[in-house]
Formats: sequence, structure tokens, C-alpha cells
Amino acid sequence: MHEFELIKNYFQKLSKKSLSALNLNDDVFFDKKNRLVVSVDTYIEGNHFLDFKKPNLVIKKIIRSSISDLICKGVKPKYYFISGSGNKQSFSKSNLSKISKSLNEEQNKYKIFLSGGDTVFSNKLSFTITSIGFSSEIVYRNKAKINDDIYVSGNLGDSYLGLLVLKNKIKLNYLLSKYFINQYYMPNIQIKLTDKIKKFANTSIDISDGLLADLDKMINNQKLSYKLFLKDIPISNNLKKILDLKKLSKINYISNGDDYQVLFTASKNKRRIIRKIATNFRIKLTKIGSTQSISKNSSIVDDKNNQISLKNKGYFHKF
Amino acid sequence: MHEFELIKNYFQKLSKKSLSALNLNDDVFFDKKNRLVVSVDTYIEGNHFLDFKKPNLVIKKIIRSSISDLICKGVKPKYYFISGSGNKQSFSKSNLSKISKSLNEEQNKYKIFLSGGDTVFSNKLSFTITSIGFSSEIVYRNKAKINDDIYVSGNLGDSYLGLLVLKNKIKLNYLLSKYFINQYYMPNIQIKLTDKIKKFANTSIDISDGLLADLDKMINNQKLSYKLFLKDIPISNNLKKILDLKKLSKINYISNGDDYQVLFTASKNKRRIIRKIATNFRIKLTKIGSTQSISKNSSIVDDKNNQISLKNKGYFHKF
Repeated sequence: MHEFELIKNYFQKLSKKSLSALNLNDDVFFDKKNRLVVSVDTYIEGNHFLDFKKPNLVIKKIIRSSISDLICKGVKPKYYFISGSGNKQSFSKSNLSKISKSLNEEQNKYKIFLSGGDTVFSNKLSFTITSIGFSSEIVYRNKAKINDDIYVSGNLGDSYLGLLVLKNKIKLNYLLSKYFINQYYMPNIQIKLTDKIKKFANTSIDISDGLLADLDKMINNQKLSYKLFLKDIPISNNLKKILDLKKLSKINYISNGDDYQVLFTASKNKRRIIRKIATNFRIKLTKIGSTQSISKNSSIVDDKNNQISLKNKGYFHKF
Repeated sequence: MHEFELIKNYFQKLSKKSLSALNLNDDVFFDKKNRLVVSVDTYIEGNHFLDFKKPNLVIKKIIRSSISDLICKGVKPKYYFISGSGNKQSFSKSNLSKISKSLNEEQNKYKIFLSGGDTVFSNKLSFTITSIGFSSEIVYRNKAKINDDIYVSGNLGDSYLGLLVLKNKIKLNYLLSKYFINQYYMPNIQIKLTDKIKKFANTSIDISDGLLADLDKMINNQKLSYKLFLKDIPISNNLKKILDLKKLSKINYISNGDDYQVLFTASKNKRRIIRKIATNFRIKLTKIGSTQSISKNSSIVDDKNNQISLKNKGYFHKF
């Protein structure tokens, strides 16, 4: 069962409709009256991160993943709670030092701070991060309009290549390996976009499961489909180099998740302000397609406007 | 390492002192400016609950345990997030139905509601509950005064006896077994005390680890010790019956945790208002001792004022 089906079937009715427009259908909870925005996520070894050989990097990955949920909604993360479950080895003094140092670095980088948490003994390593921010308004899911432009921030696919390197499924030289692994563990989340996105976005989501999976989720309650142009989907020069060198297809490397970039739609009349903000604040924002009537199928097309088929749209949390 | 040493050594410095008087040294986080109070706790099968044979009861136990953290601070819980990690069996359709039904019952009983959460696959079952309330003031830890009365709500020990029954370490008849097992899974948390405790308590905590362990924690940063009277520690008629029948010592059954009753201190001049509130609102509040100068040892005494020694003060979360 997909995570969202599970939520819908068993838990939707337990949420209070009057309080929040989100109703468990968004990545954050928003209590408008109290201006409170909360994101809660659990990260499990072997699933959300490969292993715990580098605790310092894993911690950065999960903190960024958590606050990314707030950032893509236009909400500045203020503090976070971390609950760790693990064995003695995972929480050895040496690892605790590394965890503490990493948290401190992330706190300084993103101006957030630790507000509490919990450590419990378990033979399985996992973390639950609760991130909290305050805002009187947020960018919701499922608020795209027809013929909206679809944008994505930063580059896609680097993180996935990092994972392939870590799993020894692709061999690269030292410098490139390091580059992609760093993108896997330390995605360039778009903190600078936080206080600007509300000015132009109709709807937004962060890409954790994969471009197409998250695009589907962003508009799944609307009578809309999408059309994307493969050539416009932004990738790094390093990824471009690898794809060329190894003769790999771009389509297989841009929708595999863990990017933590912001996906959003905006009306066409916002193009100027988006370009201006992108330039002035040096935020990479790329138009990759548009929304359309659901009478047309969602598609991603190549240079010749031919539809490309995809085996795997991204990662769905399944039971 | 004890949980609080771990927190102190590695994570204290990451919290923002100016924001909260709690500094990870309390069971809740309090952001006074935003009136926000948050409790985050992780519950693991085999540690915080015995097993998952009765999902409906386990869910009630962990929800009550979580909101108990807010209640003892005088804060009305408003909503909660639940993050479950487990395997297909734990989250079967049948179990999800039971979980959903149980959550609904707790929501109606305590006027709280689900605001989000997360379900992930893991071979180890655990839940993290985040409970949130709003308040401009809370009852802190470590604010007891010298010669304060020490009070506890409800009865102690029933939950522990329930655990012994579940573990087949004690044999009782059907009705008594049921009574104690219900106390283990569905402690009578003191929701009625929530909006009253701030009127008289100097400091408070809820009893999760055991009377003495939590009393220690409540005053561990103060130059205070305590004296308790064993005969005054409140137990149920059912527990009294079992202790008499099986010739068991009361002292071994009142500090083993999972009670989720409220422990607090109050100045002597509050005795009248406490009695009045207890009577008017039918809340059982029992004076069990007092705080004293740290020059005297903490003690618990019997009818003849002889000090009683204890092997095990309660449960400490250890790594």
C-alpha cells in the first residue's frame, strides 16, 4: 500500500478539517491560527540513508531533508527535535561527538537550533526529526492552475549518482566520486528561496521521492496533468559529463529522489519576477514544463516532442 | 550512560539558552514567545511496551504517555503527530483499523487530534509521538522550594503489577488480572489537573520511570533532598489486597514506573486550595512527604521513622 493511500484510508478522518487545509495531505502541518508549521519525518538506516559509517554526513542529510519540507512551503525553519533509536555502537562516544559537531554546523548554516529529543535503545537505527517554523501563510500542495509554468530549483540527479557510487554500482575517479557523494549527503537545499517563494508560486513540494513522483503528488487532487521537456531539466556539469562519457540516458537519472530541490508552479505572468529574484539572489530556478488539462496525458518529451516512457517514476514508500 | 548525562555532554550546548528556561532539561520544550509547548518521545517494542499483540491498547498507552508530559506542566494537549516504523505484519490492515479506532477513542476522550505523521518500513517496531499544546506559562522542573510539600496524583504501582501479570511473573484471577493490565495500558492520566496545577505547584514532573527516579530528576539541579512517608504513598485497594494476600512489601511496588501520575511540590500555604480543588473536581491528590536541605540525605521512611533502602529506584534509559 502506498503511504498516501494508507494515510487516506485509516487516518484522514482523525485530523481536524477546520484547522488546516492540509489534512495530512501535505508534507507539513499548518495551524494558521497559531502560525505554526510542523514537519515530522522518520529516517531508517538502509532505507532513507545507506548506512551509518559516516554519522556526520548522515546527520546533515536528515536535517536538510527535514527542514527542506518547511523551506519549500516558504517557511523559515526555527528549531528541530531529534529522536534517535540505535545500539551502543551507533551512539558510541565517538559517534555522539560527530553527531553533535554536525548538528552544530547545520545550526550555524541554517540558523536553527536543537530544542529537544530523545535517545532510546534499539537494534535498528532510525531517527525521527520534528522541524518547526512560524508563518501566517504557506504555499500549499494542489493549488496549481491550468497552464502554469513548472519550475525546479538547483540541479537534479547528483544525489542519485552519489548513491550509485556509494553502492559501487558506478565507478568514478576520486574527485567526481567525492562530488556526487557530497551531493547525496549534503544536498544544496534552497534556504534563500524561503522568504521569496510565496511571492510567485501557486503550489510547491520538495523533491524527496523523485521529480515525477513528487510532481504527481503536488497535483494529485487536481484535474491537471503535466508536460515536461527533458532537455530543460537542469543537471550539473559533472552529471552531464558522466552521462556523455558513459553514454547513459538523462531520463534515467533525473527522477530518482533525494534531490531536496523545490518544485513549484507559477502563473505565466510571474516569469519576470522569478527571473529577477533568481538573478538578484543567485538562486538557480529553471522552467521545465507546464500544467495542462487532465484530458491530455502527463508526459515528458524529448527534443523531437516524442513522449518518453519511464519504468520507474521514483520512490514510493510501500508496506 | 544515563540519558540525561548523554544529553548534557553532547547536546546541551546546541540548544538556545535565551529561548527557553528548559534547555533540554525538562520533558517538554517551551517557546514562551510563541506560547508553544512540545513533547517528543520514542516508544520501542520490548522496551516501552511489552509487545504488539494488542495494538489498540499499545496505542492508548503511548498516546497517554506522550500527552502526560504536557498535562503535568499545566498545558492542555491540542494535537499530536505519530510516526510509526514497523513491518507488514505490524501494520496489517487489521492492525491499522485497530490503531485508527484507538486513536479516535483517545481523541474523543482527551479532545486532541491527529495532525500528521509518517509510516516507514522497519524490522523493529517503534513509534515517535510529538504532542503540542499552547500556553503562556508552564510549571518547570527544579523550581521546588525548601520545606515544600510533595504530592502525587492518583495511585502508584498498578501499572507495574499489570506488567508483572503480562510477563507471567505473578498469577491473579481473571478480574484482577484485567484490572492491572488495563492500568498498564490505559493509565488514568490527570487531564482534569491540567488547568489547575499552575495555581499551586512550584515544580512538577510526570512519573514514567518511577516515583523515586522521577523525584530525583524533578529536583536534581537544586540543593534539596526529600523525605517520603511510605504509608502515605497512595495505592489502589486492589494493589493493597494483593500485597496483603501475597505478603509482598509495598516499597517494591511503588517506584517501578509507567504510572503517568503527576508528582509536584507546593508551599505549605497552598494546602487549603489543593484540598479544595481535589474535593471539588474529584482529583485524588496525596501529600507523601516534603523537600528538605541537601545536608540531610534523601530518604523514604516506614511507620517507625526508620529509613528504608531500595535496590532499584526505577528505570533509567541507559546506553
